[in-house]
Amino acid sequence: MKIIIINGPNLNLLGTRETNVYGAQSFDAYFASLKAKYTGLDLSYYQSNVEGELINKLHETGFDFDGIILNAGGYTHTSVALRDAIAAVKTPVIEVHISNIFAREEFRHTSLLASKCKGSISGFGMDSYRLAVESFL
Amino acid sequence: MKIIIINGPNLNLLGTRETNVYGAQSFDAYFASLKAKYTGLDLSYYQSNVEGELINKLHETGFDFDGIILNAGGYTHTSVALRDAIAAVKTPVIEVHISNIFAREEFRHTSLLASKCKGSISGFGMDSYRLAVESFL
Amino acid sequence: MKIIIINGPNLNLLGTRETNVYGAQSFDAYFASLKAKYTGLDLSYYQSNVEGELINKLHETGFDFDGIILNAGGYTHTSVALRDAIAAVKTPVIEVHISNIFAREEFRHTSLLASKCKGSISGFGMDSYRLAVESFL
Amino acid sequence: MKIIIINGPNLNLLGTRETNVYGAQSFDAYFASLKAKYTGLDLSYYQSNVEGELINKLHETGFDFDGIILNAGGYTHTSVALRDAIAAVKTPVIEVHISNIFAREEFRHTSLLASKCKGSISGFGMDSYRLAVESFL
Amino acid sequence: MKIIIINGPNLNLLGTRETNVYGAQSFDAYFASLKAKYTGLDLSYYQSNVEGELINKLHETGFDFDGIILNAGGYTHTSVALRDAIAAVKTPVIEVHISNIFAREEFRHTSLLASKCKGSISGFGMDSYRLAVESFL
Amino acid sequence: MKIIIINGPNLNLLGTRETNVYGAQSFDAYFASLKAKYTGLDLSYYQSNVEGELINKLHETGFDFDGIILNAGGYTHTSVALRDAIAAVKTPVIEVHISNIFAREEFRHTSLLASKCKGSISGFGMDSYRLAVESFL
Amino acid sequence: MKIIIINGPNLNLLGTRETNVYGAQSFDAYFASLKAKYTGLDLSYYQSNVEGELINKLHETGFDFDGIILNAGGYTHTSVALRDAIAAVKTPVIEVHISNIFAREEFRHTSLLASKCKGSISGFGMDSYRLAVESFL
Amino acid sequence: MKIIIINGPNLNLLGTRETNVYGAQSFDAYFASLKAKYTGLDLSYYQSNVEGELINKLHETGFDFDGIILNAGGYTHTSVALRDAIAAVKTPVIEVHISNIFAREEFRHTSLLASKCKGSISGFGMDSYRLAVESFL
Amino acid sequence: MKIIIINGPNLNLLGTRETNVYGAQSFDAYFASLKAKYTGLDLSYYQSNVEGELINKLHETGFDFDGIILNAGGYTHTSVALRDAIAAVKTPVIEVHISNIFAREEFRHTSLLASKCKGSISGFGMDSYRLAVESFL
Amino acid sequence: MKIIIINGPNLNLLGTRETNVYGAQSFDAYFASLKAKYTGLDLSYYQSNVEGELINKLHETGFDFDGIILNAGGYTHTSVALRDAIAAVKTPVIEVHISNIFAREEFRHTSLLASKCKGSISGFGMDSYRLAVESFL
Amino acid sequence: MKIIIINGPNLNLLGTRETNVYGAQSFDAYFASLKAKYTGLDLSYYQSNVEGELINKLHETGFDFDGIILNAGGYTHTSVALRDAIAAVKTPVIEVHISNIFAREEFRHTSLLASKCKGSISGFGMDSYRLAVESFL
Amino acid sequence: MKIIIINGPNLNLLGTRETNVYGAQSFDAYFASLKAKYTGLDLSYYQSNVEGELINKLHETGFDFDGIILNAGGYTHTSVALRDAIAAVKTPVIEVHISNIFAREEFRHTSLLASKCKGSISGFGMDSYRLAVESFL
Repeated sequence: MKIIIINGPNLNLLGTRETNVYGAQSFDAYFASLKAKYTGLDLSYYQSNVEGELINKLHETGFDFDGIILNAGGYTHTSVALRDAIAAVKTPVIEVHISNIFAREEFRHTSLLASKCKGSISGFGMDSYRLAVESFL
Repeated sequence: MKIIIINGPNLNLLGTRETNVYGAQSFDAYFASLKAKYTGLDLSYYQSNVEGELINKLHETGFDFDGIILNAGGYTHTSVALRDAIAAVKTPVIEVHISNIFAREEFRHTSLLASKCKGSISGFGMDSYRLAVESFL
Repeated sequence: MKIIIINGPNLNLLGTRETNVYGAQSFDAYFASLKAKYTGLDLSYYQSNVEGELINKLHETGFDFDGIILNAGGYTHTSVALRDAIAAVKTPVIEVHISNIFAREEFRHTSLLASKCKGSISGFGMDSYRLAVESFL
Repeated sequence: MKIIIINGPNLNLLGTRETNVYGAQSFDAYFASLKAKYTGLDLSYYQSNVEGELINKLHETGFDFDGIILNAGGYTHTSVALRDAIAAVKTPVIEVHISNIFAREEFRHTSLLASKCKGSISGFGMDSYRLAVESFL
Repeated sequence: MKIIIINGPNLNLLGTRETNVYGAQSFDAYFASLKAKYTGLDLSYYQSNVEGELINKLHETGFDFDGIILNAGGYTHTSVALRDAIAAVKTPVIEVHISNIFAREEFRHTSLLASKCKGSISGFGMDSYRLAVESFL
Repeated sequence: MKIIIINGPNLNLLGTRETNVYGAQSFDAYFASLKAKYTGLDLSYYQSNVEGELINKLHETGFDFDGIILNAGGYTHTSVALRDAIAAVKTPVIEVHISNIFAREEFRHTSLLASKCKGSISGFGMDSYRLAVESFL
Repeated sequence: MKIIIINGPNLNLLGTRETNVYGAQSFDAYFASLKAKYTGLDLSYYQSNVEGELINKLHETGFDFDGIILNAGGYTHTSVALRDAIAAVKTPVIEVHISNIFAREEFRHTSLLASKCKGSISGFGMDSYRLAVESFL
Repeated sequence: MKIIIINGPNLNLLGTRETNVYGAQSFDAYFASLKAKYTGLDLSYYQSNVEGELINKLHETGFDFDGIILNAGGYTHTSVALRDAIAAVKTPVIEVHISNIFAREEFRHTSLLASKCKGSISGFGMDSYRLAVESFL
Repeated sequence: MKIIIINGPNLNLLGTRETNVYGAQSFDAYFASLKAKYTGLDLSYYQSNVEGELINKLHETGFDFDGIILNAGGYTHTSVALRDAIAAVKTPVIEVHISNIFAREEFRHTSLLASKCKGSISGFGMDSYRLAVESFL
Repeated sequence: MKIIIINGPNLNLLGTRETNVYGAQSFDAYFASLKAKYTGLDLSYYQSNVEGELINKLHETGFDFDGIILNAGGYTHTSVALRDAIAAVKTPVIEVHISNIFAREEFRHTSLLASKCKGSISGFGMDSYRLAVESFL
Repeated sequence: MKIIIINGPNLNLLGTRETNVYGAQSFDAYFASLKAKYTGLDLSYYQSNVEGELINKLHETGFDFDGIILNAGGYTHTSVALRDAIAAVKTPVIEVHISNIFAREEFRHTSLLASKCKGSISGFGMDSYRLAVESFL
Repeated sequence: MKIIIINGPNLNLLGTRETNVYGAQSFDAYFASLKAKYTGLDLSYYQSNVEGELINKLHETGFDFDGIILNAGGYTHTSVALRDAIAAVKTPVIEVHISNIFAREEFRHTSLLASKCKGSISGFGMDSYRLAVESFL
């Protein structure tokens, strides 16, 4: 079973950026622990700050992977192009957020992506990713 | 570890109501399978169609249970009183939805409850409840 | 043919409350005259001020009655839960209003229920109920 | 008792146009059956696609007829001039719609006419006209 | 002179819930002190988390009591049905709030009830109730 | 100097319609008195309930008359086509209203025509027309 | 017959300020010509840039003058206090504007004052004042 | 192949009206050149300023013509009735505009007709009509 | 204990202005009775129609008085500057209104001041001031 | 004559993605047929999913090409930066869409680009590109 | 070179008011240091809490000074009259704010003045004034 | 002291693009003059049209530079991702704009970035950059 985690803008700074909101763990460290836990899965990981490169990666993986876990960061609230990419691919996409986006600024309460995703998970910190992986089992 | 699932209005009809949206399984059958899977947990279940009774149950369990999993159904989008109840109790509350609320009518995209919950999970069918249980482990 | 009239909040005060808007006749007196007129029908009547109890009654009658005539009063404009109950049951539901809701406050111009009902009748005073009964003949 | 049914734009196409929404019966056929049923009434019928001609007809009949049944079609949602005409005449006007306008596009949920009419009936197919006639008895 | 204080959802938790907002005193203790102060008045008290039961109580007391002091909690901002109940009864109703609702979330700035009440008092902590009692003297 | 008064929908009912708002004088009587007062002017008058005929009349008079006084009634608030007609002609157009449109329903506070007219006069009863004539002197 | 013209903020700059919008004539020169024309009237004039002083002047003249002609300039669109002052006095107030406010910025299309004035005149340049004087004759 | 061009309000003034926006050519001259170019087609032309007559013409041609090219002018932005007419007929309708409606006033950016048309073409001057004809080849 | 009542625009007309809304008593008469009742307090009074002078008075009294009772009249709904003044001073400010502002025009339902005041009291007629005084005891 | 077609996000999937909306033909195949048809033109083609690269290409071609045909996909509705690029270059830009964007989700009805383009063509499937090419002839 | 700094409401309290937002320095002290730094300039200073007096000062200095630096405080967001004054004068006006108005309440994000000023500077504390002075050099 | 100027989309065209808005000087020429003026500073410069590359550059410089001067062009109004990047880095960011964005299209009045920046400067032409440099001294 091939699953990819795709992280969007600023998530490369996890562990550095606003640690009161996002926690102090880097994503690489977290991803290593996740792989260790789910040894039966073929888990991979991609990050980019460029909206179009996230679209490229969705196109590349979206026809033969079994699942995509997408944290599109700030593009969640503004990108019709990403929404179209999710609708265009075959692989089911799960939207995750580390923080509870509904407890933050008003403009973060709207997701342009959610309606095209299979499901949404937000607010569990890094554990949001594990729950998304669980959803594919 | 004591966890309760609280279901709101119309969820007593699961398996009967709009099966194309909610599936054909009754919640009782699903709950039995969930209990069987998580034998180490003290799982209980409550359902009411009355907003105020849901508030009563939150008050009753919200100070000594370890977790509350709440699917408030239609009250999700309209109830400030439930929101206040969630904010008033000590136990962390997870909001779940069976369907992807973001792919339905516009007024279902807003949750008055989400910002006071620890996290939100929606769109995974009945499996949304299991993922919520997982989040407490 | 089994038909039930379900009245929501404050309609127990008919004949007492704001008689310039709703008229001076109590609903019991009106209902008696309606039963007398339609002797071939099995007409029953229920009233509650509690939103959840209206939902309970819809569930209870919504699978084997032939028609439901619903005046949800103030819940008409605020209740997603009632809307979901109407969508969940099999029996066709007719929405009625005694006063012309479009000639009153702005917030009464929107009905969350109407789109899930078979039809809507408003503004004919008590006669709105009779027209709803007629619609089932 | 003199009653007129006034139909607005596109209703001349009934039986031809979008039959999944409006049904396959022409209005002429329906009107004949209605006249046959209510032989004690002086029922007449008028249709125009021109907003101003509908206003002319309201002026012409609105001072000596006993009732006007108006289906203003698309002008329902846009015409302040028709609203003014209804307010200007003496005869009570009943607004009818064949389809359930609340279950269609957002812009059809608002009626500029309703607040000046005696009552509104929508969603019963052709039977909406009969219920309107009933309301005058 | 018969006056009743009616408290809505979550106010049974006063002294327990969000003490930084609402203070640490239970309402029972406060009510005892209020009765002690106004010995010449016939003061009573009712609380429910159920919207419809608050309506029932308004109907029950709203025709022979001299005053009703209502803190409808979260229902203040969402309940057309409560608004209608206030409009339907004869007894003057005073709306009170413990906290300054205008200094809290946006959705708390709108009261559906205020326009049907005789007056509104908010922001004085428990003392808001005393000022409401004073207004009847 | 050639000036025409063009009246829109329902203004043929002046003296009949809502006399508390518009007064009891017919426009023909008023127009006669106006002509008598301004004998030096070539004053004419046109009325139609049909939007397109008002446009036709604007085209017909809008290139060689010296002034147009337009009371477009309900079309004032809804007609982009009339606005375009005013912009298309050479003759200056004055918008008049008998009643104070700003003291009436919200939707009457917006004029689609005003920005293309030379000036606007409202609220002076029939005298609004005289002031418009004065403005051309 | 005592009539006062009250001018609000920046109108002291007439003839200096944005002459493409307001023309090159000073108000003093215009006022002199107006007085000369209407010798039978007791015409006076007041100008202030201070909102509260305009209110003071309305109070001072609003009980024994026969007419007030008010150009409130920028306060037209923002001042509830001026609106209240107009509603509070007995003398009828006419709102005038030199430019066509409907052909300018969006926020100038709304007048908080108009609904409390007897009538409104805008767009005729300085001549707007003369038409207002005419309306009192 | 039978194709009709239907022009709405004010388009009879082409070549006269706002020539900076619409150009100096009359539509008759343009139509002659178009006919000359597409000799293999049965091209006809209709214009009216009356909304209802445009609807009549759509009904008349909408069941046996092969294509309708519609420039509804100002009715584009306000007419639900025209929208319904387009939806009611069988012949595909192409919406055209001479000017770029998106570069003009805000209210011209919304078309009530577009969603019921096969396609839309705007901004090419008279050439918009030729492109529409091309689309049928 | 030093307390000042500050009244804003048009409140100098109390007893004269719109007596159906505000009652027939002048504020001076009322203030005398209030002083007589609370002889133990150092009560003073100030009124101005000028927004900036109200700010000046808040600055002057806002650092050594024990309480400020402010009825800002029409400035309540429009003045960010007054709001800033309330936030800037040390003395607690109570907002009062004579009428029930929630039962009047829509724009009176919003107070820019309330969130910076300690509490709000509205709808009790002149008695609103007494309740505000009571709140300081 | 040098013309370039620039396609934005997800259009590389044409023939693969949502074929019920966009058809089953790949753009490469279509482009080959277009080149074959217009042999007298120097037609080229570019596609990118990256917003900034589309801007780069507009800068690169926008000063010496004769025409640009732009289908910006999802960026159409969200990109001020692309809008600025279109405004910045000299070459006229034609906006095209394969589907009828007005018949899809609400947010697709707004184009940030259209007002800076020479013209817009939408809804003709692949044929939209041919019509755009035609517009340059 | 003659430059004046004009400060609006509450800025006389600088150093006293909300020192966490505005800092502890009084404006007089700051102004002295600024004068000391720019000895080659003729710098003056004015403050008023009265909107109309700020307008008066703009009129007085706006035709022969070389620059005006305006911090209109709370009037920034509400005053059309000040906006008109800025547009009316010849001297370029620079808008300054001490705090970052975009990081504060929503209503502070809109400036009615900015579009008529030459430029805007906000968020640099007292240093905002120095940068404004620099802009004139 | 290390300071970087980061320019966003289309600013590479300065001196070429819309010279009536942005002036005729290229940014390279301007930057050279700025470096010459501030020889004591370590000034660098970066430009990209790609949103994600601007984010990359903010990450790269945002932890050890002393100041960032950001003109995000069109992304200012649409990019939550850039806003998050500014919030994530340590270095203070100053937002600059060459033109007065408040005097341009409505959508340019909102900045998603401003609330996370230390300060904002707009409207001074190229000189906006110099003032931003000054703010770090």
